[in-house]
Amino acid sequence: MTVIKVGLIGAGWMGRAHAAAFENATRIFGTDPAILKIAAVADVNEAAAKEFAGRFGVERHTGDWRSIVNDPDIDVIDITTPNDVHPEIALAAIAAGKHVYCEKPMANTAAEACRMHEAAQKAGVVTVVGFNYLCSPIQAYARQLIENGELGEIFHFRGTFDNDYMVDESFPFTWRTDAKAAGKAGALGDMASHVLSLAHYLVGEVTEVSGARQVLHAKRRDAKSVERAVENDDLAHFICRFKNGASGYLEASRIGTGRKLYLSYEIQGTKGALFFDQERMNELNLYRVTDDPAERGYKRVLVAPQHPDYAAFFGLQGNPLGYNDLKIIEARRLIESVAAGKRWVADFEFGYIVDRVVEAVLVSADEGRWVKTEEIA
Amino acid sequence: MTVIKVGLIGAGWMGRAHAAAFENATRIFGTDPAILKIAAVADVNEAAAKEFAGRFGVERHTGDWRSIVNDPDIDVIDITTPNDVHPEIALAAIAAGKHVYCEKPMANTAAEACRMHEAAQKAGVVTVVGFNYLCSPIQAYARQLIENGELGEIFHFRGTFDNDYMVDESFPFTWRTDAKAAGKAGALGDMASHVLSLAHYLVGEVTEVSGARQVLHAKRRDAKSVERAVENDDLAHFICRFKNGASGYLEASRIGTGRKLYLSYEIQGTKGALFFDQERMNELNLYRVTDDPAERGYKRVLVAPQHPDYAAFFGLQGNPLGYNDLKIIEARRLIESVAAGKRWVADFEFGYIVDRVVEAVLVSADEGRWVKTEEIA
Amino acid sequence: MTVIKVGLIGAGWMGRAHAAAFENATRIFGTDPAILKIAAVADVNEAAAKEFAGRFGVERHTGDWRSIVNDPDIDVIDITTPNDVHPEIALAAIAAGKHVYCEKPMANTAAEACRMHEAAQKAGVVTVVGFNYLCSPIQAYARQLIENGELGEIFHFRGTFDNDYMVDESFPFTWRTDAKAAGKAGALGDMASHVLSLAHYLVGEVTEVSGARQVLHAKRRDAKSVERAVENDDLAHFICRFKNGASGYLEASRIGTGRKLYLSYEIQGTKGALFFDQERMNELNLYRVTDDPAERGYKRVLVAPQHPDYAAFFGLQGNPLGYNDLKIIEARRLIESVAAGKRWVADFEFGYIVDRVVEAVLVSADEGRWVKTEEIA
Amino acid sequence: MTVIKVGLIGAGWMGRAHAAAFENATRIFGTDPAILKIAAVADVNEAAAKEFAGRFGVERHTGDWRSIVNDPDIDVIDITTPNDVHPEIALAAIAAGKHVYCEKPMANTAAEACRMHEAAQKAGVVTVVGFNYLCSPIQAYARQLIENGELGEIFHFRGTFDNDYMVDESFPFTWRTDAKAAGKAGALGDMASHVLSLAHYLVGEVTEVSGARQVLHAKRRDAKSVERAVENDDLAHFICRFKNGASGYLEASRIGTGRKLYLSYEIQGTKGALFFDQERMNELNLYRVTDDPAERGYKRVLVAPQHPDYAAFFGLQGNPLGYNDLKIIEARRLIESVAAGKRWVADFEFGYIVDRVVEAVLVSADEGRWVKTEEIA
Repeated sequence: MTVIKVGLIGAGWMGRAHAAAFENATRIFGTDPAILKIAAVADVNEAAAKEFAGRFGVERHTGDWRSIVNDPDIDVIDITTPNDVHPEIALAAIAAGKHVYCEKPMANTAAEACRMHEAAQKAGVVTVVGFNYLCSPIQAYARQLIENGELGEIFHFRGTFDNDYMVDESFPFTWRTDAKAAGKAGALGDMASHVLSLAHYLVGEVTEVSGARQVLHAKRRDAKSVERAVENDDLAHFICRFKNGASGYLEASRIGTGRKLYLSYEIQGTKGALFFDQERMNELNLYRVTDDPAERGYKRVLVAPQHPDYAAFFGLQGNPLGYNDLKIIEARRLIESVAAGKRWVADFEFGYIVDRVVEAVLVSADEGRWVKTEEIA
Repeated sequence: MTVIKVGLIGAGWMGRAHAAAFENATRIFGTDPAILKIAAVADVNEAAAKEFAGRFGVERHTGDWRSIVNDPDIDVIDITTPNDVHPEIALAAIAAGKHVYCEKPMANTAAEACRMHEAAQKAGVVTVVGFNYLCSPIQAYARQLIENGELGEIFHFRGTFDNDYMVDESFPFTWRTDAKAAGKAGALGDMASHVLSLAHYLVGEVTEVSGARQVLHAKRRDAKSVERAVENDDLAHFICRFKNGASGYLEASRIGTGRKLYLSYEIQGTKGALFFDQERMNELNLYRVTDDPAERGYKRVLVAPQHPDYAAFFGLQGNPLGYNDLKIIEARRLIESVAAGKRWVADFEFGYIVDRVVEAVLVSADEGRWVKTEEIA
Repeated sequence: MTVIKVGLIGAGWMGRAHAAAFENATRIFGTDPAILKIAAVADVNEAAAKEFAGRFGVERHTGDWRSIVNDPDIDVIDITTPNDVHPEIALAAIAAGKHVYCEKPMANTAAEACRMHEAAQKAGVVTVVGFNYLCSPIQAYARQLIENGELGEIFHFRGTFDNDYMVDESFPFTWRTDAKAAGKAGALGDMASHVLSLAHYLVGEVTEVSGARQVLHAKRRDAKSVERAVENDDLAHFICRFKNGASGYLEASRIGTGRKLYLSYEIQGTKGALFFDQERMNELNLYRVTDDPAERGYKRVLVAPQHPDYAAFFGLQGNPLGYNDLKIIEARRLIESVAAGKRWVADFEFGYIVDRVVEAVLVSADEGRWVKTEEIA
Repeated sequence: MTVIKVGLIGAGWMGRAHAAAFENATRIFGTDPAILKIAAVADVNEAAAKEFAGRFGVERHTGDWRSIVNDPDIDVIDITTPNDVHPEIALAAIAAGKHVYCEKPMANTAAEACRMHEAAQKAGVVTVVGFNYLCSPIQAYARQLIENGELGEIFHFRGTFDNDYMVDESFPFTWRTDAKAAGKAGALGDMASHVLSLAHYLVGEVTEVSGARQVLHAKRRDAKSVERAVENDDLAHFICRFKNGASGYLEASRIGTGRKLYLSYEIQGTKGALFFDQERMNELNLYRVTDDPAERGYKRVLVAPQHPDYAAFFGLQGNPLGYNDLKIIEARRLIESVAAGKRWVADFEFGYIVDRVVEAVLVSADEGRWVKTEEIA
């Protein structure tokens, strides 16, 4: 049994989610070609690292992430820290020849993401970015449909990622509204990247954008009840063109009143169409132009054993998967990338290209003009 | 242009709805093979008859329905009076050799409905019962699918007709809760007949039932605020067997909290299934067992020009029809029955068979046992 | 009984729809304060005018619309001709002191619409544009909610009007794809105006746009099978800002694969949100931020007697209205505007402002920049 | 840290699901008041037990379940074997003073379930039956609503559990269609118990039934292609009365064409109503009679941190849980029952009462009459 040794950096909620996903991946998918094992855990809060190690049976823990990055026994560095330190850790890991599994967004700027991608490419290491929503059997099935030409030529895409936890004025100023910690792109950076990842996965690269950004409540009170100016967008949206000529509209909003996890898309092609909503993550709605005219309509397809990965969970169609199952499948993608040479699409190059669109939207919104992604570093 | 002369009996809300439907039918479907024209109107309230005649340009009005029934100039007697006088008028009309268009339910007892059916059969006149929900293009399409074998052998049916206007205790005692006016079957008589009409139209005859009835609020106050005992059921439901061996469940309720016009059904066959809900009357949900296993699911088909009658209204799929449009199509069925010898399925025989099931449920509920419809007169 | 005498110009499908709506309006709403009666009908095809007159009992018919416009006996000129002759007829009618009821779009250019509006304003005549989708009880209810502050401050709008009858390459070149007849704005002119009308009715004026247009199949064959270049857009979409500061996205597409009458919107405010879809025209989905956190969610409200105009049709909640019912309510709005001084919101000024946005999108798409509507004539 | 030592009997798919749930329960809910640890595993297939022990780090494995039942070190016996041996193992475990966690159905007959319940009651041990669907936060929330009187007096229930994997004639004869292994109640035993468990959890006990059973394909081929007579029902359904006077309809079908995991219910009360469908397990639809008449409708409430247990998984409303998460929560209920004296509702008494209704339906269907559950042993 091949064991991939993981050095986890960040012992918070997401670190725990990774640990669970690694163990569950073994149970669901078995031990072939390899299993993931957290061999060491680091956190700036050393006590948290220690507690984590005890809870999950991790042999080594430390307050110094560098000691893990440089540990010759470690195969993969898993980064679940705050966004702003992703680049430093990832670059150090790559320099040490490690594979890297990094939560999204890779970086707060496209330039940093680009550096990370180029370093990884040069070093020839495996990279995976935590675009977990791509890991759903439903999305893999959607991609198969498209690759098999079932939708014909795709010419239009609409996508959103709306939730509404910040629509309430009394929601506090946090690191998310602080440009230093979360970047100048608020909902745009945090959430648009998810819908962009789906757009890129299913339709291809966005190459040109015209966008706008919006702040609903200009000021919020921080934990000490001090009023602070919100430093990044609550809502960002843009029209765009894809490399293949398709038109698109994308939106990301943390003030999307009434929506909770409305990561949705609609894809229109000459032979068919799809729509999807993460609030109903186990359903893909499929329309075929080629159906008999008397019975054309959207069909609600429930996740099924014929869709990639699902049969490892359940034998019958329609048994709901949950968010945590996506992380288990993501762990599977990491294993396959590292141990089977089957690179997962959501690598650093993919993440960088997403970040470049995000930055193009930022420029477009700030300058009030169409921006080509090739303008961005 | 052939004109079918109608003698309308009952100048209330439903009478007006018929008048409008007759005129709109000409506009929508044209003048071939005939048009309907109200030549005389009667109402026990003579003033109402007069007002109606003025408003709709009817030449003759009267307080005495018999004078219309016996008018040699009249081709069709159209009955929109309260239920309890349907039989007397219909039998007189048949005796006078008239065709009869009668609102549902035909009668308050199966025995009366039987007499009406037998008299009409013997006289050879055309009869139509106002089961307007059958007149929807979506139902005609559903029937085509079934007749073409698209669902395979049908083995199960579930149907409801729920609304909730009587769930409120303060809703008054009216003629509907009065057994003399509305019959002993309350929701059962008024509403189950609609879902039974759909079941019979799509699946075939119900031959055996085991049912129960329920009164939610035993007493209600009448218009004079006098407390009266409710004399018929608020909810009736039953399991059953169809002639073809299928099993079924039907429910009718005027206390169906949360439902407004929930005339719904689900039909399961060996090759496919359907579900439908009148609140979304322009949609039929279709499932095919023969679809690729990877993409099985219910398809939401919007009403389309390929469905019977719709193209007379609109050229493109998905333009909503409303309740009043069903009455227009019913008028068309009446015209075709009278002038083109194309008998509409919902005739007195059909209505009688529905009423027989209603009565079987009544007996079953009261005696707590399975009842075969052949036991009923 | 006051009779408003209408001179109908255009005896085609829409003319017939108006005629039916006028008569049904009397039945549904009664005779107070007035009824509409078509006193004369004109069509360039004189035979069509004659046939129409016979069918609907119209006293006078002609091949020359000017004779009707100048008929002193006529109160309202009703224009259902092709779009390109709307301005000429409307301006002549206004010059003759007539009220004008005009199908949408008012004109193929904003400049013409502006002239029509200004002429009508100067003449003090009543004008109504056929934005029938605004006439739904559900929209009137939505507007009440907003005016009553139930959604708080509205800060975001998304709207679409997608159908898909042109996604098929073999759909022919018709007047709709011909810039001379239908204007340079294809889906943009024909369909975006509907979604803009809803946006303006519910949220307020769009003042700035950044848009794009798209042609899916550059060539189509005409009725003679000659290949012709398609001269206007199949899809147009844009991001925008509203006068009140809200952001928006609007889309119109006749190639919206899978959608049939997807005139939809979502409106997000600080206290609530709405979404709506014309395919389910009798439902309004309402979300309230103020609900208990344990039970927040979108509520599906069916059309009800408490919503404007519905009680004239039905007494109980949830009985579906159809497209033709909207035209009946529009006729009611015309009656109220002419006879009761209760001006309907969708007048020539409203239509002009919609057309100005359409033209701003045209300029924006062609020049690749943000355009303010005040730049447009 | 208190450790509850579990002896697992049955090392198949469900055994693995339990093992995963136990570990994940610790991660999700923490270590207070106790954790579950599998200390020994037994399977008639000793190799399977061995493989299981290796994979999940279980110290002891055996082919003889009795050695585990009698192991003084074990606190809880966890039974995931085929149904027909549940009683023997459970009774032995109770005799040995163990707590018992048993998959559903407890037994193939009500008499056996009764014996199990009475033995457990006498011994004073904790029992939990694997009615995992009750463990959803959405169901706990539904129950809270009902207990708080939000629905008023409940008077009607409809519930189904439909899937369709056996609608295909070529689906083989297996242990499920074999009365010896699966009992005389097919879909009735396997699936009706789930919908009954929801009915009992939310509305109360069913006391009287009138039902029917159905076999779609009388013969199926077994693994050796030998044609065998199907020995139990594919579909069972019944009308019923609840202890509180409510009426009900329940259905269970493994031939429910088009349905995949359609464990659904609708509950109608004098003040509100609910409907639910396990295919969309993270949504509860709530209707309140007390809403303003203008805005009455079903509200789609997504699972939220205010609902029991959900906050341990996610901080924001609407993040989907999956099937496996229900098993984690069930493990939590077991821990609370054993270590915190907080008995979970789904104990052996609960399971027995469910089985008694199942048996009443069997008798009712076979004898064609109403059967009171008190008639059943």
